Amino acid sequence: MSTFGSVFRVTTYGESHCKSVGCIVDGVPPGMSLTEDDIQPQLTRRRPGQSKLSTPRNEKDRVEIQSGTEFGKTLGTPIAMIVKNEDQRPHDYSDMDNYPRPSHADFTYLEKYGLKASSGGGRASARETIGRVAAGAIAEKFLNQYSNVEIVAFVTQIGKIKMSRDPFDPNFHQLLQTITREKVDSMGPIRCPDASVAGDMVKEIEHYRGLNDSIGGVVTCVVRNLPAGLGEPCFDKLEALLAHAMLSIPASKGFEIGSGFEGVALPGSEHNDPFYYDEEEKRLRTKTNNSGGIQGGISNGENIYFSVPFKSAATICQEQETATYDGKSGVLAAKGRHDPSVTPRAIPIVEAMTALVLADALLLQKSRDFGRSVVH
Amino acid sequence: MSTFGSVFRVTTYGESHCKSVGCIVDGVPPGMSLTEDDIQPQLTRRRPGQSKLSTPRNEKDRVEIQSGTEFGKTLGTPIAMIVKNEDQRPHDYSDMDNYPRPSHADFTYLEKYGLKASSGGGRASARETIGRVAAGAIAEKFLNQYSNVEIVAFVTQIGKIKMSRDPFDPNFHQLLQTITREKVDSMGPIRCPDASVAGDMVKEIEHYRGLNDSIGGVVTCVVRNLPAGLGEPCFDKLEALLAHAMLSIPASKGFEIGSGFEGVALPGSEHNDPFYYDEEEKRLRTKTNNSGGIQGGISNGENIYFSVPFKSAATICQEQETATYDGKSGVLAAKGRHDPSVTPRAIPIVEAMTALVLADALLLQKSRDFGRSVVH
Amino acid sequence: MSTFGSVFRVTTYGESHCKSVGCIVDGVPPGMSLTEDDIQPQLTRRRPGQSKLSTPRNEKDRVEIQSGTEFGKTLGTPIAMIVKNEDQRPHDYSDMDNYPRPSHADFTYLEKYGLKASSGGGRASARETIGRVAAGAIAEKFLNQYSNVEIVAFVTQIGKIKMSRDPFDPNFHQLLQTITREKVDSMGPIRCPDASVAGDMVKEIEHYRGLNDSIGGVVTCVVRNLPAGLGEPCFDKLEALLAHAMLSIPASKGFEIGSGFEGVALPGSEHNDPFYYDEEEKRLRTKTNNSGGIQGGISNGENIYFSVPFKSAATICQEQETATYDGKSGVLAAKGRHDPSVTPRAIPIVEAMTALVLADALLLQKSRDFGRSVVH
Amino acid sequence: MSTFGSVFRVTTYGESHCKSVGCIVDGVPPGMSLTEDDIQPQLTRRRPGQSKLSTPRNEKDRVEIQSGTEFGKTLGTPIAMIVKNEDQRPHDYSDMDNYPRPSHADFTYLEKYGLKASSGGGRASARETIGRVAAGAIAEKFLNQYSNVEIVAFVTQIGKIKMSRDPFDPNFHQLLQTITREKVDSMGPIRCPDASVAGDMVKEIEHYRGLNDSIGGVVTCVVRNLPAGLGEPCFDKLEALLAHAMLSIPASKGFEIGSGFEGVALPGSEHNDPFYYDEEEKRLRTKTNNSGGIQGGISNGENIYFSVPFKSAATICQEQETATYDGKSGVLAAKGRHDPSVTPRAIPIVEAMTALVLADALLLQKSRDFGRSVVH
Repeated sequence: MSTFGSVFRVTTYGESHCKSVGCIVDGVPPGMSLTEDDIQPQLTRRRPGQSKLSTPRNEKDRVEIQSGTEFGKTLGTPIAMIVKNEDQRPHDYSDMDNYPRPSHADFTYLEKYGLKASSGGGRASARETIGRVAAGAIAEKFLNQYSNVEIVAFVTQIGKIKMSRDPFDPNFHQLLQTITREKVDSMGPIRCPDASVAGDMVKEIEHYRGLNDSIGGVVTCVVRNLPAGLGEPCFDKLEALLAHAMLSIPASKGFEIGSGFEGVALPGSEHNDPFYYDEEEKRLRTKTNNSGGIQGGISNGENIYFSVPFKSAATICQEQETATYDGKSGVLAAKGRHDPSVTPRAIPIVEAMTALVLADALLLQKSRDFGRSVVH
Repeated sequence: MSTFGSVFRVTTYGESHCKSVGCIVDGVPPGMSLTEDDIQPQLTRRRPGQSKLSTPRNEKDRVEIQSGTEFGKTLGTPIAMIVKNEDQRPHDYSDMDNYPRPSHADFTYLEKYGLKASSGGGRASARETIGRVAAGAIAEKFLNQYSNVEIVAFVTQIGKIKMSRDPFDPNFHQLLQTITREKVDSMGPIRCPDASVAGDMVKEIEHYRGLNDSIGGVVTCVVRNLPAGLGEPCFDKLEALLAHAMLSIPASKGFEIGSGFEGVALPGSEHNDPFYYDEEEKRLRTKTNNSGGIQGGISNGENIYFSVPFKSAATICQEQETATYDGKSGVLAAKGRHDPSVTPRAIPIVEAMTALVLADALLLQKSRDFGRSVVH
Repeated sequence: MSTFGSVFRVTTYGESHCKSVGCIVDGVPPGMSLTEDDIQPQLTRRRPGQSKLSTPRNEKDRVEIQSGTEFGKTLGTPIAMIVKNEDQRPHDYSDMDNYPRPSHADFTYLEKYGLKASSGGGRASARETIGRVAAGAIAEKFLNQYSNVEIVAFVTQIGKIKMSRDPFDPNFHQLLQTITREKVDSMGPIRCPDASVAGDMVKEIEHYRGLNDSIGGVVTCVVRNLPAGLGEPCFDKLEALLAHAMLSIPASKGFEIGSGFEGVALPGSEHNDPFYYDEEEKRLRTKTNNSGGIQGGISNGENIYFSVPFKSAATICQEQETATYDGKSGVLAAKGRHDPSVTPRAIPIVEAMTALVLADALLLQKSRDFGRSVVH
Repeated sequence: MSTFGSVFRVTTYGESHCKSVGCIVDGVPPGMSLTEDDIQPQLTRRRPGQSKLSTPRNEKDRVEIQSGTEFGKTLGTPIAMIVKNEDQRPHDYSDMDNYPRPSHADFTYLEKYGLKASSGGGRASARETIGRVAAGAIAEKFLNQYSNVEIVAFVTQIGKIKMSRDPFDPNFHQLLQTITREKVDSMGPIRCPDASVAGDMVKEIEHYRGLNDSIGGVVTCVVRNLPAGLGEPCFDKLEALLAHAMLSIPASKGFEIGSGFEGVALPGSEHNDPFYYDEEEKRLRTKTNNSGGIQGGISNGENIYFSVPFKSAATICQEQETATYDGKSGVLAAKGRHDPSVTPRAIPIVEAMTALVLADALLLQKSRDFGRSVVH
């Protein structure tokens, strides 16, 4: 459904052509300074039209806090946020509406709901993610105030063009340790921090744009400074919650944490992360981090990192042989301009969903910490 | 926590050395024939000691239904199931207990709970999965009675040895359409249906067993005959629930559905699944299935298929340089015999978690279907 | 928290002086005709300022649907609704703010959240209920379209003035069978359908208004035409969900269903509701209805009826000896005009919460019905 | 369904004639000493057959902890508990089975589930409450270790015989402040602490037993030493959770907290609880406690007290004119011996459900406290 989280919880609403999109965030700690300025930057990063790499449609996407703050501080009560839709008219039906777009949600929404929203896929709209990003910005501020938690996502692949995300490569871990959003954004809209491939990625996207086609990619995300102990065995392991969150993002097709799919080829003797005592931090740490910062479903205090593949966008202007809802063969070519690669725009969404999972897990674990501190 | 599902819901309990492990399954439809004979086969498939590929420890794992059935029929009330632990003594502490096992849950459980269970990782025990498998068998029977839903998981990779799971290969889809549990089990304990690589997989496992080491692998799972319409946008997309379920299985490190990570390299024009009208089934279907049976978070009536990587087992008898809980450097070599590859045993667990997700989604969708059928 | 329901679910937001109050309703069946006109009437009934019996503050409370409908039909996606606050400024602090109002939420909100909202009690504001009423109107329309479910609440007591709500009185059951909202509203703002006491109730309220005081009352609610089978044993019995809903309404202090507190004095031989076969309806019914329409936590197809006491409003202009937050003794007299009796205004809130419980229970039960229909 | 609670959570199972009844308790803090000896006393108090006031059937009801503890300490993992059923055979059908028992759950269970359990009402069995009581004992121990929380329930009414539970009577508050379980049990099985009426209550029960009839009663419960700040606005107000819990107990028909139904007759000037500064405890307290320890849904640190009416037991051996499932008129007289008053046995169930609500609310609030302590 449209609610996510247990004690830090977001509920979102909105589709393409309704009055507004937004969310209610419940469980935000009281007394935290919070204004629209804390939320707008990530919404702006999510916004299309920032460059020719994404769709030219320029939505303003200004967030308005409706409740839950007073004099710039949170009250502990639900924070509702609204972003107006610029284009609020359900569109006129055209020939294109006779076709369920291949690999889009038109067909399945019809199967589930028995009707077609004007916008086709209803909630399967990129605008649905605005509420997530707004909520995530609040979660992130809380995490940051607690222990300087940093969440940074970036593009590691577009089509066949990849930068290294090899979990056994020390340089990759060096990058994970140092990458910032500023660095990511400094690369332009492609949001790939590896200058040696970023240019090719841009070309890859431009290539498919030229063909009225689209192309997929991979986003990698790192979380730094998260304390150990987060995650609830057995069904709510921290990686399970992260996977749930990531696969709920439109167009995502997978998730891997730490060594992921590649790691299965390594024997335990090489894959295991041995412990050592860190004199500076006065705590046990691991020499390697194939686990991706989570062991047994619980964070271990190392960097958490994971990757999420996003498929090529379903809506393309190229002609596709397909069938109408009525089962007649025909050719569909989408009208309008469409984003050839949603991957770079997924960055703030991945960051937001990560923050929502972690804020919830942190609050829950502090309740556990309390419990254990008072019993005997 | 230890509860999974909304209207079809399982709660599990138990660790390695307590009296029993098991679960309570709530929301099972009333009037379904059900005895231990429906549940035991999958528990037996999960059991170690079936061959030299897995650990020789032979647990009997006989399930006993405690409640919720009468005269061999379900009552609609919670079904509790119990499997006794053979070895119920918390073990004596040894030198090995001074070390948190690298990449196991010993360290993180201590961080979270502030204490060490005798068994080390507490719920991070393979025995925790018994309750899941028992519950999954019930879910599966329900799904099967509804629409002959079939769920078959199999090993597609051990270490570096792979069989094809290429989503763009028609032969792979032919396999997905026809593979059965009988076929999978006919390959022996390796559970890889591709005879051309199964032998090498066995050798790979034997190789690492000989080195007192372990090795990972990949499980692929297909679901056939599931109706369209299942899954709840936006946070409870069907693939998000499946990812949550899979990443909650011990040792899993990822999830990909349909074209997954490979698919990002394909442009939309090739990746999109065009529609056609199936004259026999009198419904729209897709010519290809890169989506993996889910579009926009909702099942489309095609086969669902996904893969899950399992890392090499953390507990190995080979010596590992690591540190004690106290931070002293030292060498740990696990005592006893340990499973060199958990991957083949993960098969019934993957099937069970899949069934639990789908039974819940099906019940929920039928409530949605009802709603839409009465309003105007 | 601020979310209620499982498959038909509302999340509310807003306090007295923020920009707006409202809600998101998730799980509304698709294809139902719905506009603001379906929702406004109950909001208007909830509104203060309708007569001298309630506070003169005249809020317009116009609801705006933000999402989830198109061309006047629901899409099956979340329906967000907003009602602007007329007075959006957090007020200036005055001497009155040094005192936690006795029996209001000022003190407990400070204890819980560590801060004071300008409006004192934060979410403990009558305006919080606007989101509930808006959501309830949708639930009600759905229930009504399904089986002509009717939910009617009315005032049965103000202060010491009571009308009969004796569960053993056939006249009371006759009233329950026939009472309509039109009849209730025809009595004026007092909303008591018994003309023989309604006048005295008005006088009772006027008496306390004259004293700058307030007075409590009781609301009784009946549900007609609800099918049998709703409610989920053991913790989610239908009466448990109703009790939860009613005690979540501000100022409510209790709940009783059917024979309630009075019924305990009757022996089983008199209290039990014997069955008979209703030739007209072709089903088993009960001759009496001391159960209040629910047995064993499950609706039995008879009228559901229950009562809810509302305490006298905490905020009064009369001087009260009390203490400041700092612990100093002093005298508090609230400024402004305050509602001497919230009971009549609670009517649409009681109806709304009832509808929310029942819509959720109905959808859930239809999922159960499906399950039992396909197994064998 | 059969799960209750959010972060401290119980799931129960079992009906009358299955192998066992019991529960899984999830979220218990780790490191708390816990053995069967902590749980058995309340189970024994719940047990029938303790005197001629209740049914002579003597079930042993020995609890066995299955998991979640080691060396007498909790692990933080789920605690499963089992109590064997002595009589595990579904009984042979008799003439009595043709009749749905009036005011029992036989009819509604048939409506909901489409089948009849041998035991008639399935989960609507007194044995269902065993899992609650076992879980409640753990919750209680945790609350007690935290802040010496004391929960004491007692009988205040049987049939027409009442002791004072007048919220405006200082003697009643004196009783609430001092009553103990030892005192309650010292009155014998009637569990009414007022010696001046306890004898008459016993006679009332004996009177109805002699008539093969049954009689209802009221249980009042007090909670002492609970900190302020518990409860989650707006839907999960502490009194709403308590009401939910109480109405989920079989045979309960209502709930009132603090001044309850009587309080509505008092004007605000008398009903409001003024504040004063308690020099000894160094905190604001209220002079009166008509609120019942909760204001705005949040505990205020005063005693919480509430009452719950229990109807006369539905199963009586007296002949009742009623109808068969088939709709034929006839006369039903239950066989066997049945409890003429369930009220005294409800005491430990009320205490258990109270403890479950409070343990969950406490853990949740400590997570809130943490949140507010780290933000700025």
